[in-house]
Formats: sequence, C-alpha cells, structure tokens
Amino acid sequence: MNYAPLREECFEANMELPRLGLVLYTFGNVSCLDRAAGVFAIKPSGIPYETLAPQDIVIVDLDGKVVDGALRPSSDCNTHLELYKAFPAIGGIVHTHSTFAVAWAQAARAVPLYGTTHADHLAADIPCTDFMPDERIQNDYETETGLQITECFRKNGFDPSEIPMVLVAGHGPFTWGATAAKAVFNARVMEELCKMAYLTEAINPNAQRLKDSLVQKHYNRKHGKDAYYGQK
Amino acid sequence: MNYAPLREECFEANMELPRLGLVLYTFGNVSCLDRAAGVFAIKPSGIPYETLAPQDIVIVDLDGKVVDGALRPSSDCNTHLELYKAFPAIGGIVHTHSTFAVAWAQAARAVPLYGTTHADHLAADIPCTDFMPDERIQNDYETETGLQITECFRKNGFDPSEIPMVLVAGHGPFTWGATAAKAVFNARVMEELCKMAYLTEAINPNAQRLKDSLVQKHYNRKHGKDAYYGQK
Amino acid sequence: MNYAPLREECFEANMELPRLGLVLYTFGNVSCLDRAAGVFAIKPSGIPYETLAPQDIVIVDLDGKVVDGALRPSSDCNTHLELYKAFPAIGGIVHTHSTFAVAWAQAARAVPLYGTTHADHLAADIPCTDFMPDERIQNDYETETGLQITECFRKNGFDPSEIPMVLVAGHGPFTWGATAAKAVFNARVMEELCKMAYLTEAINPNAQRLKDSLVQKHYNRKHGKDAYYGQK
Amino acid sequence: MNYAPLREECFEANMELPRLGLVLYTFGNVSCLDRAAGVFAIKPSGIPYETLAPQDIVIVDLDGKVVDGALRPSSDCNTHLELYKAFPAIGGIVHTHSTFAVAWAQAARAVPLYGTTHADHLAADIPCTDFMPDERIQNDYETETGLQITECFRKNGFDPSEIPMVLVAGHGPFTWGATAAKAVFNARVMEELCKMAYLTEAINPNAQRLKDSLVQKHYNRKHGKDAYYGQK
Repeated sequence: MNYAPLREECFEANMELPRLGLVLYTFGNVSCLDRAAGVFAIKPSGIPYETLAPQDIVIVDLDGKVVDGALRPSSDCNTHLELYKAFPAIGGIVHTHSTFAVAWAQAARAVPLYGTTHADHLAADIPCTDFMPDERIQNDYETETGLQITECFRKNGFDPSEIPMVLVAGHGPFTWGATAAKAVFNARVMEELCKMAYLTEAINPNAQRLKDSLVQKHYNRKHGKDAYYGQK
Repeated sequence: MNYAPLREECFEANMELPRLGLVLYTFGNVSCLDRAAGVFAIKPSGIPYETLAPQDIVIVDLDGKVVDGALRPSSDCNTHLELYKAFPAIGGIVHTHSTFAVAWAQAARAVPLYGTTHADHLAADIPCTDFMPDERIQNDYETETGLQITECFRKNGFDPSEIPMVLVAGHGPFTWGATAAKAVFNARVMEELCKMAYLTEAINPNAQRLKDSLVQKHYNRKHGKDAYYGQK
Repeated sequence: MNYAPLREECFEANMELPRLGLVLYTFGNVSCLDRAAGVFAIKPSGIPYETLAPQDIVIVDLDGKVVDGALRPSSDCNTHLELYKAFPAIGGIVHTHSTFAVAWAQAARAVPLYGTTHADHLAADIPCTDFMPDERIQNDYETETGLQITECFRKNGFDPSEIPMVLVAGHGPFTWGATAAKAVFNARVMEELCKMAYLTEAINPNAQRLKDSLVQKHYNRKHGKDAYYGQK
Repeated sequence: MNYAPLREECFEANMELPRLGLVLYTFGNVSCLDRAAGVFAIKPSGIPYETLAPQDIVIVDLDGKVVDGALRPSSDCNTHLELYKAFPAIGGIVHTHSTFAVAWAQAARAVPLYGTTHADHLAADIPCTDFMPDERIQNDYETETGLQITECFRKNGFDPSEIPMVLVAGHGPFTWGATAAKAVFNARVMEELCKMAYLTEAINPNAQRLKDSLVQKHYNRKHGKDAYYGQK
C-alpha cells in the first residue's frame, strides 16, 4: 500500500498547529485515519515542527502496531487508537496544550455554553473528564486516557459527531472530526471558545448559560437537517 | 448596472477583518450599500477569507432578494437588511465574533464609558440588547436580530449616527458607518474599547464612568460642530 | 532654518509607535524639541501612520504657533507645549492610548512599584493625576491637561527626569525623555509595567510594593552616580 | 584558546529570546559554560539585540574575571557565576523579565503544579525565593542573588537538574540547563506555565494541585529511567 497520501494529509494537518498558535515546541500531535485500510498516520514523538517532514510521519494499525516508518509514534498514540476504535465516524484527531483549553482542563471544569459562537459549533458545554484514578494511571496510561474519554461520552450519552472535543482533567484538550483538517479546525475553535468563556465570567461572574432556544437555532442553522449556513 | 465597484469596495472591507485580527475562519461579514441603486453587496456565506474573491460578493436588493452573484449571501444577510432599512444614514455594516466584544455580549452587559478613548468615538455606553424572546427566535431569526437592534435604538432614543455599534446579548457585535470602511474601523475600535473596559474593571472594581463634561469635550472635539481634530 | 533633521527625528519616533504595538489607527503622537531654536516638531492631527511622511510633520514654536508645515498639528499640541515649558530637561514627548496604560488611567490608579523591572526605570509608583475639574475642561482643554500634569509633579515634588511618565485620569499615558526616541522607549516600558502590575494583583491581591532597599539598588545600578549597567 | 565557538553558541541562544517574545529591549541575558576550560560566555551589558554580534559576547572565568572581549559583561554576570559554581551539571543560564513569570515573582508566589504541561517538565512547583534581606542587598547584589537561589535549592533539597528554573521574589525568572539552548527552552516553557497557572486560578479559585500519581507519570514518561517520550 502507498502511504504517501495519508502521510501528506497528516503532515499538513500537523503543520497547521504552529501556524494557528496552538502548540509550543512539540506540545501537540495530529493523526488521520484510513478506516478502510485499517491504519492511521500520526506525528512521530518529540520531533520539532521546524524539522518535521512528510516521510517522518508514522503509520500505525488498529492494533497499535507500527506498520511503516522509521520513527516512534507520538507517545499519545494509544489515546488516538482508542478514540478511533470507539468513535466510528471520525477520521482525524488532534491533541494540543493550547493555553486557554489547558487552563480550563487544569481548573477541571466543563466550559459553559455562553454564546452563539459556541452554539455555532456544538450544542452542549465542552465536557471535562474526571481525574484518572491511580490504578488506571499505573496501567497503559495513554490507552486509559482514551478509555476515559470514550467512557465519559458513553455514560453521558454524548454523540462524538455532535461534540467533537473534550477536556481531560488536569491535562488538556482533544478534538476530532471527519478529517484531520476538520479536527484541527475544531482545536482552533475550542481554544477561542475557552478564551471567550473565561473572559465572559471575568466580566460577569453571574453570566448565564445561553438559553436552549438560541442554542438550538444557532446549532441547527449550521448543522441541522435544514441548515442554511454556507453554500449548497 | 455595473456592480463591480460595489463588489470591490465590499471585498476590500471584508479582507480588512482578518488583517485586523477581528475574525477567525469565516466568523464575520461586511456589507456595503448603494442606497440610490437600492442594492447592497455582502460576503457570501461560509467562504474562507483566504479564497474569497471580488466576484464572489453577492448583490442583494432591499427586499432581500439576490439580484446578482452565483453564491448564497451571508446567513446574517437579513440582519444587515433591517439595519439598512431602519438607519437611513448608514452605508456599511460589519458583524464579527471578535473576542472581547463577544465576551461582553455573552456577559449581557453594556460596555461602560470609562475613558476618553471611548468618548473619542461615542458619547454613550456601548448598548447591549435584551436576549431575544423564544417566539421571535422561531420566526426569521436574522430579520428578528435586525429588528431587535433597531427597536433597542428607537426605544432608548439612540441615534445610530452617534452610536455606530451594538452588542446583541449572547451573540456579539454589529457596527456600521457611512461606508463599509468606516464600519470596519468602528468594529476594530469597539474591540479595543471592550478590552480596555474589561481591564479597567479588573484593576478597579469600583471604577467610575467618565464624567459627562469630559465625555462631551472629547466627543465634540472630534465630532461636534466645532470639531478641531484632524485636518480641515 | 532647516527643519528637515528635526522633522526626520520626529517622523522616525512616531513610526516606532505602530511597530511597538502602542497605537491603533491615529491614537498617538510624538514630538521632539530643539530647545536652542525654540521650536518643536509634532505629528499632524488625524493622519494615519501608513501614509505619514516626514514632510507632514508640523513645526511649532514655544508660543504654540505653527512656524512651518502645511498641516494642523496634533490636537494634543498644547499639552506637549506645557510640558516643554515646565520641564526644562526634556527633549521629546509621547502620548498614546496603549491598552494597559489606558486601563490604569481609566481605573484612576497610580501603578504600584511591584518589582525590579519597574525599579530599573523609575524609583516611584507611576503617578496618576486627579480628574480635571469642569471649569478647566471648559478652558483650553489641552493646555489644561499639560498644566494638570506639571502641577501634579510640582505639588508632589516629583522630578520629571526621574519619573518620565504619568497617567492622566480617565484618559491615558504621557511619557517624555531627553530625546523623542527615549520618550518612545519609556512609552513601551510603561505599557509593560502596567501589564505586569495588573497581572501581579490578579495573582496576589495582597502583593506588596517592592521594599525601598531593592528599589534603590535597582534604580541606582542603572541611573545612580555609581551606575554600572551598560557600557562605559 | 579559541573562544569563537562558545561565543557563537552564546550569541545564538541570546538571539532566541526576542524571537520567542521573552525580552523587551535589553531585559535579558544568556550565558553558556565551557566547564573544562573554566570559562563562560555571556551577553554584554545593555547592548540591544538588534545590534548584538557574536564578537560582542564576553568571556569570563570562574573567578568572575573577564578573560576576553572588549565589552563589560551583563550586570547579572555574578549571578550566573554563583549558579555555575553551585550547580555542577549545568552548562547554560537564562535570565529574562518575561511578563507572566515576572508577575508571579512580583506576587512572590511559587507557581503551583496544576497540570500535565507543567509535570512534563518538572515534578514540583516552580520555587520562589524569599525577598533578599537588606544587609545582603548592600553587598555584591548580583552575587547575593545567585547565593539566594542556590541556598533556596540546598535548604529545600531541590535538585537543579530536576527543577531547572526559579523565581527570585520581586524580580523575575532564572532558568538553566545542560546547554544554553536548553536553558532558553526552559525559559519559554516557564513563561507558558506561569500564564497557564494564572488563568487556571482565574477560572477556578479552588483549583487543586495535580495529584502526585499523575505528576510522576508525566514527569517519568519524559525524564524517568524508563522514559518513552521522543526518539531513542
């Protein structure tokens, strides 16, 4: 199989992170999945973006084994793997340590849906997982991180197609989408929503969640069955 | 009629938004009006600024019908339409989701006039509408957003030539002006006023509104009948 | 007299303001004085930095009369004039509406000396004037603004060579120095000190002013008679 | 001895500071040590980064004497000297006045370890020294600053290889590493950790320190004996 196109797509999506100001040094990674082929491409661990090249991208199968590439995959590889296994509609995943999203994760709070900018992208608060119990930290930590996210979604009945982002408590954001490019888009939007929600609370400590009628209106004009935002 | 000059003016004003850091992705739009011809030019819906071209700009008449252009106009088109119909002196409108203005809108607070930077541009707090009632959200939402703004101005006796900006509660800023370029200028100024007011309250929770004598002095030296700011 | 060198110096100092992020649109101005010739050069009123050229700079004498130049001087010209008359050692003045300095001015608070970054430049809090009384606002407002600053320094025994900056309550910062370039340097430093002091109070609402022994040590190693910072 | 390579390494590390947004004007300095030769290279005092050249870098021995170079070394030279003498494993030192680190130093607070971004780099709060007693300020101040840091580490049993950074109360950050480049990396990371911790407390005033099991997991996957982050 020719992995070059998948590598190229993964490389391009990774390079968007520093351009969008979402990563410092190597603090982030993007993967993209070819579900038919059962493999995903992911950034190698600890390689700076300045020197990253398409051929450095690592190809991993859905058992977590490297099937092509000379480098070790991102240390977060198994988190990506669990998300791909549990969320059948997604094709790309992003993890960053972007500033405002990390601040909410460290504050261990879900990000309240305060306005239409948020509702244009998701009709719910941005969820935040619980802190991981000690016994799970001792296991395969990155696999457990993925399981923590998927369990959070299953228990709460969240649809990963409708809520394409999560905060891992004490850690930071993960986002996903149909493609790696869409997952990067969601990472950038999430950082902005986190900044806006922080400022909203600073300006009005009693700010109210946006009422549901407005949430539904904005979410559905972009994502509902009668959506009319954008071109046909 | 040759719509090329109106399209060009609208295109240039739209392209200022990313240059000024006021929009992320497609979160904003500018229109400009030819009142004699009874048409306005507006950004097409959901087209990224990176690929936007002058010929993509959509021409709409004052009944809200597209009269020229292959693309759908901004989903906020009917809000622009209502403002053009109610405010006879304006020739351009801007809507963004700029960070600090959105934060005040989500906080559902008018922005207090704390200093001369604000008074140099308007002699009043930046108004914030009420949240839209549910029955109006179910109607033509974007038309209702425009009506909400114009009713807010009429009820409060605000002059849209003197207060060229508003916050829609839970949503974000709209600004306008004699031209699209002036409306963009007002959008950038508004974002700065929102940031300064936020910081002012953080530094002094008991900060006082600027006294009226100073407000009038600054507003009138730029905008009064004896204005002496700028060149003759 | 050939005003070209003074114009050029004034032009260069003005152009530093947008490069340093201290001005938005036309919200600022720099002047520089030739005390022997009894004239100063100042930015024309309301001219955007993008189109400003050295020949646009206006030459004004110490009676406030334009002696050379086709344009009107900055509307703040008389404030500069009063400072040049009262502070015999200064050769350049800057006025901006930089974000954090304006926030402190709007909060009507002197900026506490919290650390060595501040003490490296001045050994006192950054002063903030009182709000101007109404009767003075009705006079020549810009002259009164200058007088307000010079009276604040005289009454408090402040030495303008040692405290090269002030906040005008409700308005914003003025800085000065031996040259226009030094006044611009002070404007940039002041903005940073204002940002740091704001963050310091946010991190520790009970933060203490830096003790005087440390203030004196830092100020004097740069500015005292036995200064050893920099090259001989 | 040929000092050119050491000068070049020092020059390059210094020039990273403005590129990373860590210094304003001359507010910072980097040194790098050749421990075998018993000399270190350091930025000259008060020279702007715009005009700094490799040949300007000053070579100093471990008695603090300039052994090569035409310029005076950084006024903080003796602080670097004390750190090199007390911390045998380090090869580079950075001092800046970066905004968020200074704010924590002025707040005189250690930076709590709130998340994995922090734990990826150090498994402890970022320490903050006490304020220097007056009698020590009157001595060789810069030597005393170094001693204050090394005493803080010795008394608290901190390992400078594991905690490569410190805040000096009322002053600002110092960082170090095996090389000057690594010390610069630590300076940039520290500034980001300071910003994230500030935002975390703003979002949740009751935010908890990250639990130790998560701290150890993250620190050790990057720095422990079984570290698996990065390439082999």
